[in-house]
Amino acid sequence: MPLKSLLMIPGPTPVPEEVLRALSHPMINHRGPEYMALQRELIAGLKQAYQTANDVQIFPASGTGGLEAAVVNVLSPGDRVLAVPVGAFGQRFAEIAEVYGANVRRMEVEWGRAADAAQIAAALREEPDTRALLLTHNETSTGVLNDIRAIAAAARAVRPDVLLLVDSISGMLAVDLRPDEWDLDVVVGGSQKAWMIPPGLTFLSISPRAWAAHREARMPRFYFDFSRMKKSMETDQTPYTPALPQLFGLQVALRKILDEGLPAMFRRHQRLGDATRSAVRAMGLQLLAQEGSYSNSLTAVRMPEGLTAKEVRGRMREGHGVVVAGGQGKIKEQVVRLGHLGYVDENDVLAMIGALEATLRELGRDVQPGQGVAAAQRVFGDE
Amino acid sequence: MPLKSLLMIPGPTPVPEEVLRALSHPMINHRGPEYMALQRELIAGLKQAYQTANDVQIFPASGTGGLEAAVVNVLSPGDRVLAVPVGAFGQRFAEIAEVYGANVRRMEVEWGRAADAAQIAAALREEPDTRALLLTHNETSTGVLNDIRAIAAAARAVRPDVLLLVDSISGMLAVDLRPDEWDLDVVVGGSQKAWMIPPGLTFLSISPRAWAAHREARMPRFYFDFSRMKKSMETDQTPYTPALPQLFGLQVALRKILDEGLPAMFRRHQRLGDATRSAVRAMGLQLLAQEGSYSNSLTAVRMPEGLTAKEVRGRMREGHGVVVAGGQGKIKEQVVRLGHLGYVDENDVLAMIGALEATLRELGRDVQPGQGVAAAQRVFGDE
Repeated sequence: MPLKSLLMIPGPTPVPEEVLRALSHPMINHRGPEYMALQRELIAGLKQAYQTANDVQIFPASGTGGLEAAVVNVLSPGDRVLAVPVGAFGQRFAEIAEVYGANVRRMEVEWGRAADAAQIAAALREEPDTRALLLTHNETSTGVLNDIRAIAAAARAVRPDVLLLVDSISGMLAVDLRPDEWDLDVVVGGSQKAWMIPPGLTFLSISPRAWAAHREARMPRFYFDFSRMKKSMETDQTPYTPALPQLFGLQVALRKILDEGLPAMFRRHQRLGDATRSAVRAMGLQLLAQEGSYSNSLTAVRMPEGLTAKEVRGRMREGHGVVVAGGQGKIKEQVVRLGHLGYVDENDVLAMIGALEATLRELGRDVQPGQGVAAAQRVFGDE
Repeated sequence: MPLKSLLMIPGPTPVPEEVLRALSHPMINHRGPEYMALQRELIAGLKQAYQTANDVQIFPASGTGGLEAAVVNVLSPGDRVLAVPVGAFGQRFAEIAEVYGANVRRMEVEWGRAADAAQIAAALREEPDTRALLLTHNETSTGVLNDIRAIAAAARAVRPDVLLLVDSISGMLAVDLRPDEWDLDVVVGGSQKAWMIPPGLTFLSISPRAWAAHREARMPRFYFDFSRMKKSMETDQTPYTPALPQLFGLQVALRKILDEGLPAMFRRHQRLGDATRSAVRAMGLQLLAQEGSYSNSLTAVRMPEGLTAKEVRGRMREGHGVVVAGGQGKIKEQVVRLGHLGYVDENDVLAMIGALEATLRELGRDVQPGQGVAAAQRVFGDE
């Protein structure tokens, strides 16, 4: 028997059997009563999962479409924007704003480091006409988690009315995020991450401040227009045909999410992240993320001298059935990214670590059987 | 037993069991070898189904996203555009161009009529700096088929270099369309129509003339950018996570489509359209579309005096299990739209006609049992 495939990348993440089966629901009329009840249920569930009383909208698109929607719905060409990219997806967020004519200042940090709340506050003091901040909650290219709560508080202390646009595509549900308590204006999510459903949907929460900005925002938009979506949602519909399979999947996934409960989901991801990091260190490898800014969705591991991501990933996949991701952008071959978000449990992490251990040994590195796995097991036994 | 539901709307269309099952394929790495082979196969199959040697791209979006992509990739703000809306979706195409700053002239026709090639040629003569034509192949709101071949020839005779952007979302595969032979620049398709897969994907073919225009086009775009997609496609990938379930479905659907063969698909839709129209007339009802411009994807039926689309549709659904669509835009209650595209056969049409017959009788109209069905049967027996 060929090895089963264990998908451990930071999205698409594994999808539970019952969600996969729900995708196969026969088509329905997206203007009929069955659809309208479905959409009502999904929006209510999304608000719970988002921990928000703000409007939440669903667009049939990848997460990148959600980032575009966040930008074009609340900004006008020429608006001053402070982008704080800590990796490839933060760069993408900034690039979208530039393409649509915003005046973007990029506050860059070295990849692996987190954004600094005090520096952001200082930049807002320097440029008080800054209209919006582009922030990344969890940076998928580096495995860095930003402290959005601290950043939001620092930014609001300087500029109470600045727009906070947050990419939490790979963060939400793996790590706590509070759009309302932390006063975040637009928060973008993506279906193929901790939501446990396939790619194809992006979610956005929209604060009253974002709606006020929207009414004056002049960047052009049609497909991703909040107003058109809001108008259709008044009758529990969408302005164009929705991606039904993912919505049927979301219905089942939301029940699983709310059954497990958000605090339990956050604890599970914390434990999976702790175990992975502990195992990686025990094998003598280094993390890309700096201490204190660890993502619980994925772990980016620096390749030791003389090894490329490509050969490590290839051997893990071909020899051990475990699929992990390489680096992105400028660090493509220098890191391997281990995903541990969504429908992932302790056994999946042990198998992933075991495959990495064996691969390193096969490539001539001095790693003993169990060296990483034992470290992960200690974390799991430590509850 | 409650009645089974027979979905006869012009999209989402019924999806074959084997395609529904394919949607449930477990997730794979969208940067790995299995995905890359899938994308190669899909693009090759799409080109066959599109009857084109031009580039074809797939975006994770609804058809409206495809219309936006067609506009923003080849035009600049201020460009003069001639839109020829023959219904709600043609209006939408024009509105997208306006939102992005094109200088749009709308050549309106009464709903139910087709676009006139000679008038279009005359308009191009009047305004020789027209950069693009926005055309609808099959107008889903009225059941009108435009003669794209004649329109393209007439337009090219006046302006050989004008850009022809064609919405064939509900046309393609139901009716013949030849992007290369007819020299069409961008042709937009949508997964939930005759392709027999769920909503969530839009397809675009891009001619060399469209690529040349793209290089100078200055409308802002990111998610729908042709260049970013083309660059990723060089390594059989996408610039962001693709909608995997629909792609797994497309793989199965394309095999079915190419097995049936395009000429057979066109003949099947012709027969289903002929039978539906014949039955509707036999019941004493009137078609919205004018003679000679009939869609083979759907039939829009005028409601007789005193009946609303809502009550007819409600009774067909509740009493007979047949789901049909109402009108759109300004004719919402005045027409019922009967879908007969995609995975639909003669029995489905007979059942739909039977339900409409019974409904009319129940609503006090003078329609005899079999009056419409017999007319449809005569068409089917007539092969």
